Amino acid sequence: MQVLKDRILTEGVVKGGNVLKVDSFLNHQMDITLFDAMGEELKRRFKDEKITKILTIEASGIGIACIVARHFGVPVVFAKKSESKNLDGDLYTSPVYSFTHQKEYMIRVSKKFITEEDRVLVIDDFLANGKALIGLFDILGQSGATVVGAGIAIEKGFQGGGDALREQGLRIESLAIVEEMGEGFIKFRD
Amino acid sequence: MQVLKDRILTEGVVKGGNVLKVDSFLNHQMDITLFDAMGEELKRRFKDEKITKILTIEASGIGIACIVARHFGVPVVFAKKSESKNLDGDLYTSPVYSFTHQKEYMIRVSKKFITEEDRVLVIDDFLANGKALIGLFDILGQSGATVVGAGIAIEKGFQGGGDALREQGLRIESLAIVEEMGEGFIKFRD
Repeated sequence: MQVLKDRILTEGVVKGGNVLKVDSFLNHQMDITLFDAMGEELKRRFKDEKITKILTIEASGIGIACIVARHFGVPVVFAKKSESKNLDGDLYTSPVYSFTHQKEYMIRVSKKFITEEDRVLVIDDFLANGKALIGLFDILGQSGATVVGAGIAIEKGFQGGGDALREQGLRIESLAIVEEMGEGFIKFRD
Repeated sequence: MQVLKDRILTEGVVKGGNVLKVDSFLNHQMDITLFDAMGEELKRRFKDEKITKILTIEASGIGIACIVARHFGVPVVFAKKSESKNLDGDLYTSPVYSFTHQKEYMIRVSKKFITEEDRVLVIDDFLANGKALIGLFDILGQSGATVVGAGIAIEKGFQGGGDALREQGLRIESLAIVEEMGEGFIKFRD
């Protein structure tokens, strides 16, 4: 998606440890006009699927997921990373290792909100090694819901998580795939 | 806002410890159609303000903030609760005590994204004792931005946080104010 790639080239900053900093429009400040264009594009790509629900993970996936969900006319469920007084009853859980925070945490989704009747699209801001996405797909597997696929803003293709999931037959649509990056350069997959 | 009050009466569950569980439409599963109506209402209430940015706090504020921001045509910035490799540089910080998680944490906003030229509306899903909102207003005070006020989905009026802020002259617009609640009943402020 050209408008997203242009923003990454203009505002993205490559840092050590495979970090691509896009906090000016994606995951700290959020450009809602851009998110809306991303929602329109994902609706175009998944238009033939009867999606009933969008699943994402806190925190930075939530904003994109909500704007995308407007285009599909469906609710969003977000997986929680911490225990809370507000989260009780029967839960789907899955362990996810975060390289950003360098620790493993449990993600949790209430069983009430994803059932085997659902056809679910997963939305997230980033796909790198794929650990968060694997956790979300694991939860969908437990629920018996139909996994339609995933819509991702930025995939770091060189970290291999997206391609490994595609090899398993999952549909992963990333709006910008970074093939290579380093100090002062970012190269996208065609 | 009647449509929100109706949902609270239909789906809200009052639990011990002043917890009002509304996870079916507000803070675990999110009803985007309802959020859109809330955005329209907040735009109506703040229509004469020249808002340039919306500030919220992760995680459950983000979805509402993004949908509301579409109605104002402005970006969203969300305060982060944890340290992260993706958050560096100059930060505004403020300590916030969470009764839900029973601990104090620092909230962080990059100085790049809120400046003294901004006119900021704060958005959050809940207002109870007001600790999160006080932290966000503190950050806005540090930035020199103009504080337009806050738009809240559900205020637990009996916990007093909203009224204490109003007494300081802050404009707090809550779409539903619960005045009293207990097992099997929820009473709203007129």
